[in-house]
Order: sequence, then structure tokens, then C-alpha cells
Amino acid sequence: MKQIKLAVIPGDGVGVEIMPYATKVLDAVADLHGGLKFEHEWYPYSCEYYLEHGEMMPRDGLDQLSQHDAVFLGAVGNPKLVADHISLWGLLINIRRGFKQTLNIRHAKQLRGIQPMVTNPGGFDLIVVRENSEGEYSEVGGRIHSGEDEVVVQNAVFTRKATERAMRYAFDLAKTRKGHVTSATKSNGIVFSMPFWDEVFEQVGQDYQDIEKRTAHIDALSAFLVSKPAEFDVIVASNLFGDILTDISAAVMGSIGIGPAANLNVDGTHPSMFEPVHGSAPDIVGRGIANPIGQIWTGKMMLDHFGESELADQLLTIVEDVTESGMKTPDVGGNATTGEVSEEIISRIKQ
Amino acid sequence: MKQIKLAVIPGDGVGVEIMPYATKVLDAVADLHGGLKFEHEWYPYSCEYYLEHGEMMPRDGLDQLSQHDAVFLGAVGNPKLVADHISLWGLLINIRRGFKQTLNIRHAKQLRGIQPMVTNPGGFDLIVVRENSEGEYSEVGGRIHSGEDEVVVQNAVFTRKATERAMRYAFDLAKTRKGHVTSATKSNGIVFSMPFWDEVFEQVGQDYQDIEKRTAHIDALSAFLVSKPAEFDVIVASNLFGDILTDISAAVMGSIGIGPAANLNVDGTHPSMFEPVHGSAPDIVGRGIANPIGQIWTGKMMLDHFGESELADQLLTIVEDVTESGMKTPDVGGNATTGEVSEEIISRIKQ
Ligand SMILES: CC(C)[C@H](C(=O)O)[C@@H](O)C(=O)O
Ligand SMILES: CC(C)[C@H](C(=O)O)[C@@H](O)C(=O)O
Repeated sequence: MKQIKLAVIPGDGVGVEIMPYATKVLDAVADLHGGLKFEHEWYPYSCEYYLEHGEMMPRDGLDQLSQHDAVFLGAVGNPKLVADHISLWGLLINIRRGFKQTLNIRHAKQLRGIQPMVTNPGGFDLIVVRENSEGEYSEVGGRIHSGEDEVVVQNAVFTRKATERAMRYAFDLAKTRKGHVTSATKSNGIVFSMPFWDEVFEQVGQDYQDIEKRTAHIDALSAFLVSKPAEFDVIVASNLFGDILTDISAAVMGSIGIGPAANLNVDGTHPSMFEPVHGSAPDIVGRGIANPIGQIWTGKMMLDHFGESELADQLLTIVEDVTESGMKTPDVGGNATTGEVSEEIISRIKQ
Repeated sequence: MKQIKLAVIPGDGVGVEIMPYATKVLDAVADLHGGLKFEHEWYPYSCEYYLEHGEMMPRDGLDQLSQHDAVFLGAVGNPKLVADHISLWGLLINIRRGFKQTLNIRHAKQLRGIQPMVTNPGGFDLIVVRENSEGEYSEVGGRIHSGEDEVVVQNAVFTRKATERAMRYAFDLAKTRKGHVTSATKSNGIVFSMPFWDEVFEQVGQDYQDIEKRTAHIDALSAFLVSKPAEFDVIVASNLFGDILTDISAAVMGSIGIGPAANLNVDGTHPSMFEPVHGSAPDIVGRGIANPIGQIWTGKMMLDHFGESELADQLLTIVEDVTESGMKTPDVGGNATTGEVSEEIISRIKQ
């Protein structure tokens, strides 16, 4: 029996609504296999937890989570916490960095039964490899002077090590896919970090002679995801650019509620974390209509991570069978609830 | 007779192809007025110029340009210059900064006869006010160490003065439009500059009690421009975020080739510059199919700038009459040339 120990963190908002269903779906998939079992331990770390305890998780939170094989996270965020970087750096980014989850992999593709939001989808299927540990998200910077003379400096920090790692991952991935990688840059406007990014892309690319290298500035690339998403396959991007591109690609698919993501620890020292692209969606909380597909597809990426690609593919096929059948939440044009969609997926798994 | 002295810089690529037509359109519009005349002086500053002279413009280039009331620019960029920040900082950004064009205003709306690239356009009509003088586009930063230990730091620099200026402009604009402003932030991930940005937005907003204030993170906002562009009216954004949002909004309209832009000098000390959102488009150069609408609409923004709003509106109406008639370049689904579309616009102006 292969046991996978999951730390389940529903988090806030729709995360709490979706997670019970998503874990049930995963259990059903594991049963298909026979020899696979998920053990879940639930953790209440969230903005709600913060409001009660004054911190997003206890001081030994990372230690506790590290007892598990992976973290399965819902969403974090609460409109009551206006300075939301405090909650996010306390939990989400804390785990990403504490567990050296240096890559954030996000998949987007046209799903059967879900109307893309663009007029020229062309059957697109792309993966964004996002550098997840540094770059524009840095705690380096500060303010000087006050009043009308105030100046604020924010440093983006790029290391060769982390940049190379993201690029190698992207090139290796491209070998198993269509054989080309697009690098998201902005070296025409951002003149230190981005020319360096381009340089590393070119250097690493020399080890991958068979892979076609393309570069596009983030402004143009964002527009291309709208106008011709099918031209892209593997995209490698910095922390901020990857963040932006993957929200766009999720919307292009039809709803931000369906984008999956994996925060990968690639050196094997810590658990990886699986959390969808969408946030806690306070606007629809309590109505039972949150789309569970982002979280379920994220679970599919977790199955891939643990070497269960066959099960993973089976799960995504069933998800598409369900969307194709018309059983969908309102964000993608249906009128089903979170529970109805999830139960339908479970019942098809069990068939 | 009101004379407007234009420094015309066709630049590179499609800029060179479009500019003769765009200036002809402007002349035709001026004739409608009777009392208005554009005087143009043409400048060859471009990447081609660089390849010949080793600089993008002569040392007294800014002095020469400053003799004019405005700069009308086509596009800059040449694939032969791989490190394109050299050419762009030498010309485009040099002019923006040298002439204190601290705001970049970009309009996007659903045009009659042009199919938007998103399935839910809803008749959107929005303006992005982009801070144009600082932020993420800074020459502050550098590298340390080498080889696998290399670290690159890029500073984004935000001043209260420039941030406030962009916001006041946005709020003032909102008064003449739908009464709400959306601020593009990323304070949950970028923890110095963006919380400051939010703070200034809130502070400046207090002087505009009647204007509704909204904020959205750049990732979500980029996705919203795809999923529900009609919910936005005035958006205020940093240099980089404004750059990204306006390429997206141009694509959403139907083609990056139609987005207009105005680089405004708001203290009246230097000429403003009018240049479309699109670049030099090396992929289609020489085929005569570049869309002239971006440049012509940019001319319309120039007319607004010089107080000729009535003429400006008339011009945009005629542009839409032409697109509605089906006379369009291939990027927006037609088969007309740059010249045919432009001549059709001119002939309707003269009617
Ligand atoms: C060419 C580049 C430097 C420029 C920018 O990013 O400002 C362009 O994308 C624009 O939007 O005008
Ligand atoms: C919540 C925020 C800090 C986070 C990010 O920007 O990384 C989110 O947008 C994401 O993409 O996971």
C-alpha cells in the first residue's frame, strides 16, 4: 500500500467550501488504484486563524507541515485584513519559501465543455513555469524622506541559481511536449534584471539544442495569450510575470476558478504544495457555487507529482466528461453547485 | 490660423509605412476646421539611424524636438538590435523622460465593425492612466559575484510626487466619465512599493469623495480585462503594470494594432508625445498591411490635447464608419491595405 500523507489547509473563503469535496474526489481516485491511499490531516491555518491568534500559523507550523508528503491548500485571503501581504507572507509565501518550493507550475488548456473567454482559442494547451522563490517578490527595499519628497525603493532580486533552475525545468518539460519554450521578459524597459534573465535563457538554452527558444516581452505576451494562446506551449517566467500570465491563462480557459497549480520543491528536501490559481473569492462565499475544478485539477497535478500519471490523466478526463455533460458551476455557464459538480465527478470515478 | 508644429518621427518598421498616411489623415481633419494647420518636420531618428550613426538621435536631438508643439511618433525597434533597451532608452524613453512626459494615457474601447477578441466585451470603454516616468523602469541596480553565485538587483523607484500626479489625473478624468477609478496594485506580493502605492491612492482619493475607489491586484485585473472589461472605466497603474494592461486591452479590442497612446507633459514645459501602443512589428513589415488605426487614433488623442475635441470625436466616428463598412486590414479580419484604409478615412473626412 502506497500512502501519501497530506497536510490539508482549506484556508479561507471558497477554499473552505471546496476542500471537503476535493479531498473526497482524491480519495475516490486513490480507490481506483487499489494500492494508493491519501491520509489527510487538516490544519486551520488561515486569515480566520490569524484574527483569533494574531498569526497565520503557530511558530512550529512549518515543522508540523513538514511531517507530511505534500501540502494541499485551498485559498488564503480575507477582506477584513486590509494589508493582505501580512497574511499572505505569513502563510502562502512562508510555506513556498520555507519549503524551498522554488517552482510554480501552472497548466492551462481548453477543456471540453467549457467555453473559453477568447474568440481564437485554437485548442490551446500550455504550461507556465514560474520562478517561485525570489524576483520581484522581495522583502528588500524601504522608504526615505516624508511628505511630498517621499521616495520608496523596491528591489527585485534575481540569482543565477534560481533563474537557471526555472529555465532547465522549462526546457526539460519542453522535451516531453512540443519542443519550444517562450521566455517572458521585459528587457527593453527593465534594464538590469531582465537582460540578465535573457542571458541565462540563452546560456541554458545551449544545452538544449533541439528545443526552439522564443522570447516575448511581458506586455506583448500577455496580449498574445488573449489573441493566440495556441501558439504557446511551455512559458518560463519570473515570479511576478508568471503570476500575471497564469491569471490571464486561467481566464482565457473560461474562469479563474479552474486554473491548477503546483509549488514544487525540486531538491526533495521538503514537501511540495498544491494550491489552485484562484483566491478566496469573498464575493461568492457562502453561496455554494464556487468551482471545484481548480482544486481538483490541482489534485491531479499532485497525482502526477507522486508518479501516478495514469490516474491523473483519468481524473482530468472525467472532469472534462462532466463539464461536457453540462454539469457546471455558474462561473462557466452552468447552474450546478460545488457539491453537485464534485459528486458527479466522484460518481463517474466509481463507475 | 492655429498652427501646430509637429515633430514627426516615423521610426522603424511599420511606423515608416503608416506615418505618411496618418499625417495625411490629420491634415485632412485640420482642413475640416479651416482655422487649423499642422506643420510637420520629419526626423529620421530610429534603429536604422542608430545602425548608421551609432546613436538613436544626435546629441542635440531633444533640443531640436523641443522646437515643436508635439512629437508624433510611429514605432521603434529593429530585430537587428538584440539588446533593444539600448535603442528604446536612447529614443522612446529618452524623450518621455527628457520632456517630462510623466503620464501615458491609453484608451481602449469596443469599436464598431471590429470584433473584440473576448467573448464578453459588453461594449467596454476604458482609459488607463499609466505613470510614465519612474517605477519599475529604472536604471538603478546592478550585479554582484559571477558564475553560479551571480546576483542581480533591480530597483523600482516610486516617488510620492509622481504617484500622486498619476492618481490625481485619474480621479479628475473619472469626474468626466463614469465616476470610478480602479488602482492596479500587487501589494500582496510586492511589499514596499505597492503598499505605498495603495496608501497614496487612498490619500489622494480623500480629495475625491464622489469618486468610487476600487483596487485590484495586477494578476486579477489582467484576467478581468479578459473576462469583464466593461466593468472598468479609469484605471491607474504603475509604469510596468500600465504597460501590461494596455497591451491586453488593445488585444481585447481586436488587435494590438489599434491601441492609441499619449505621453503627456502635464506641467507645460515640454512637448507631449503621441505614439501608438503597438511596436514596429517586424513580422509584417513590407507587406503594406499594417493597421493605421492605432496611429490615427493616436492623432485623435493629439487633437484632444490641443483642445480640438470636436474634431477629435469626428475623426474617431469616421474611423468607426470605415471599420463598420468592412474596409479593414487583415489583423482585424479584413483584406485591405494600410493605404486603402487610410484613403477611405480621408475620403470620408472630405465628404
Ligand atoms: C518599447 C517599450 C520600452 C515600451 C514600454 O514598455 O514602455 C512599449 O512597450 C510601450 O508600451 O510603449
Ligand atoms: C496571493 C498572492 C501573493 C499570490 C502570488 O502573487 O503569488 C497569488 O496571486 C498566486 O498567484 O498564488
